[in-house]
Amino acid sequence: MSKRISILGSTGSIGTQTLDCVAMHPDEFIIEGLAAGSNLNLLVEQVNQFQPKKVSVATKSLAQQLKSEIPSSVQVYYGEEGLIEVAANTDASFVVNALVGSQGLKPTIYAIESGKHIGLANKETLVTAGHIIKQLIEKHEVQLLPIDSEHSAIFQCLNGESLSEVSNITLTASGGSFRDRTREELVGVTVEEALSHPNWSMGAKVTIDSATMVNKGLEVIEAHWLFDIPYEQIGVVIHPESIVHSFVEFNDRSVIAQLGNPDMRVPIQYALTYPDRFKTSTEPLDLTVLSQLNFNKMDFKRFPCLKMAYDCGKIGGSATTVFNAANEVAVSRFLRGDIQFLQIEEVIHKVIDLHSTTANPELEELMEIDSWARDCANKVPSSSC
Amino acid sequence: MSKRISILGSTGSIGTQTLDCVAMHPDEFIIEGLAAGSNLNLLVEQVNQFQPKKVSVATKSLAQQLKSEIPSSVQVYYGEEGLIEVAANTDASFVVNALVGSQGLKPTIYAIESGKHIGLANKETLVTAGHIIKQLIEKHEVQLLPIDSEHSAIFQCLNGESLSEVSNITLTASGGSFRDRTREELVGVTVEEALSHPNWSMGAKVTIDSATMVNKGLEVIEAHWLFDIPYEQIGVVIHPESIVHSFVEFNDRSVIAQLGNPDMRVPIQYALTYPDRFKTSTEPLDLTVLSQLNFNKMDFKRFPCLKMAYDCGKIGGSATTVFNAANEVAVSRFLRGDIQFLQIEEVIHKVIDLHSTTANPELEELMEIDSWARDCANKVPSSSC
Repeated sequence: MSKRISILGSTGSIGTQTLDCVAMHPDEFIIEGLAAGSNLNLLVEQVNQFQPKKVSVATKSLAQQLKSEIPSSVQVYYGEEGLIEVAANTDASFVVNALVGSQGLKPTIYAIESGKHIGLANKETLVTAGHIIKQLIEKHEVQLLPIDSEHSAIFQCLNGESLSEVSNITLTASGGSFRDRTREELVGVTVEEALSHPNWSMGAKVTIDSATMVNKGLEVIEAHWLFDIPYEQIGVVIHPESIVHSFVEFNDRSVIAQLGNPDMRVPIQYALTYPDRFKTSTEPLDLTVLSQLNFNKMDFKRFPCLKMAYDCGKIGGSATTVFNAANEVAVSRFLRGDIQFLQIEEVIHKVIDLHSTTANPELEELMEIDSWARDCANKVPSSSC
Repeated sequence: MSKRISILGSTGSIGTQTLDCVAMHPDEFIIEGLAAGSNLNLLVEQVNQFQPKKVSVATKSLAQQLKSEIPSSVQVYYGEEGLIEVAANTDASFVVNALVGSQGLKPTIYAIESGKHIGLANKETLVTAGHIIKQLIEKHEVQLLPIDSEHSAIFQCLNGESLSEVSNITLTASGGSFRDRTREELVGVTVEEALSHPNWSMGAKVTIDSATMVNKGLEVIEAHWLFDIPYEQIGVVIHPESIVHSFVEFNDRSVIAQLGNPDMRVPIQYALTYPDRFKTSTEPLDLTVLSQLNFNKMDFKRFPCLKMAYDCGKIGGSATTVFNAANEVAVSRFLRGDIQFLQIEEVIHKVIDLHSTTANPELEELMEIDSWARDCANKVPSSSC
């Protein structure tokens, strides 16, 4: 029987690759809904190819334009309501959340409350509101499957194993665009330089987050929630080749690792087909062609954002929400030339410093804190909040 | 409830490390039987520490000597009958077969027929009579768990996975004592040089087999039987660090690998505790201390014995029996200075050449072929069979 799927963020990097997997196994999947932002041309193509029943775009005017270009049988929505409609109100049993940023949170919540299983590529969902999502997942008995290559790796390494026998997990980090530069060499780097990632082709936000190591910080926090593992048992190592996607050490010191060529279609498809595995069009891994895998200690002084992520994670409550919100704003300010690359960490640091943590916030309070952090991140470091 | 165990080959490298694991978890295991060869001093120590009910040694005179040194409540046996007594006629539910060479076959058969689960470190059992063992395992519904680090790695990588989704498995090979030498540089190497293995401390036979790559050949054949995988889907790569113990590629190109510091106690204990994992005293693996893992293509011209193993495996029937028997004799001839190192492969090759394969031999026929191969291996290459 085919699996019915909705995709939030269908025209982005993860979204299009999710549709690649669907296209490769047309008998296995039916697309019920697609939500995109403003890339109408691509969305129209996707609608024609995959024939969803519901689609959503960013704004009302985009929605009106879209309606004129696709069959009238397709229901068109927009904005946050549109995202929620595609997430929660289709016949899909599985929702891929490939949205970028904290806009991914609410649709996830609605999808879970509608009993849908979640394939999660949106890191911010768990970083912003991990405690709320975990409760909902348990209450509604749905699966939360990771799509990130690192978390998918950990998830695969845990197959058939017992969580109580895990002694620690280690996320690998490519090191990002600037891995070979010292901190001094980061002064004045351009947006263009920051956007050229050595191993993975990703969206702009994730690529910058990769260079600041915020991305790995978000992943550490996400891993904490996904696998119920204390921060003290989550490690990060630099692995420039991005071949070992992450690994788990068990109490007998046996280490299980998941490897592969860098290709997001593998973890995406695994979330779609779990617990089965279907063929992918990825090239097989030949370690002898590569010949060498390198591993280097993570330097928290070189990457202070990762240190901040651990600190916020250990504090818990609203601290990670603020970390994430401040970073989102700082990255977009860097991308539009408003601040320097090294000021990203300065902005995050100041906002965290000015925040006093709430231990177990409800969603509404979290959203207020999130807004405050964004406002604040738009002001510092030149003025105060 | 404690698990009752018998160990065949208790004073050897695998046997003593099995007892290390037992000693580390005294509440979990009870030793029912121990079979050793001629190392009486160590066996007496083991008997005092672990208090088995039955023990066995190589010969009648050793048995008589042993009796005078241990409590009279311990029943003492000897020879092949003694091995079978310890393997099959105790209250153990699990038998560790850590015997060296094809003497390991019969006790395994008797143990399986008595309904005991097997922890198999004796490669020759499956190499000599894989088709017979597999039938017996199914008939008596017992588990056959690998103890070799490579097979344990594959076994661990398959946890929670479906065999039908495996596309191939790859065994790693350290390359043995002579991995940095060309074939020309192997002429006239001494026994002492051959016995110094770079990564693992093992018995003499296994260390020589490692240098000729016969060991990996036996492992390929064993993997074929253990995991029901065609030879075409079993690969070997040189991995000098012996950190990645082997890996599995699935049909989605995802690769799962098992890693760890080279320490046989990890795979031994995993066989003892499967499907659980208990603590070991092994050092945790730190990839950043090692910093680099290397992988090189296997060169079948450099290691013709591995090529012969694949060829015999694909032929099947009695071919692998002959490969193994010829090698056992050749190695012992090399160890006693009767032939040169490079003549090991020459001996194996000649014996295989002279043998006409039987497709599906019964045990008795196999034993006759085994004897013939040993006789022949003692004569070639200087005279003919």
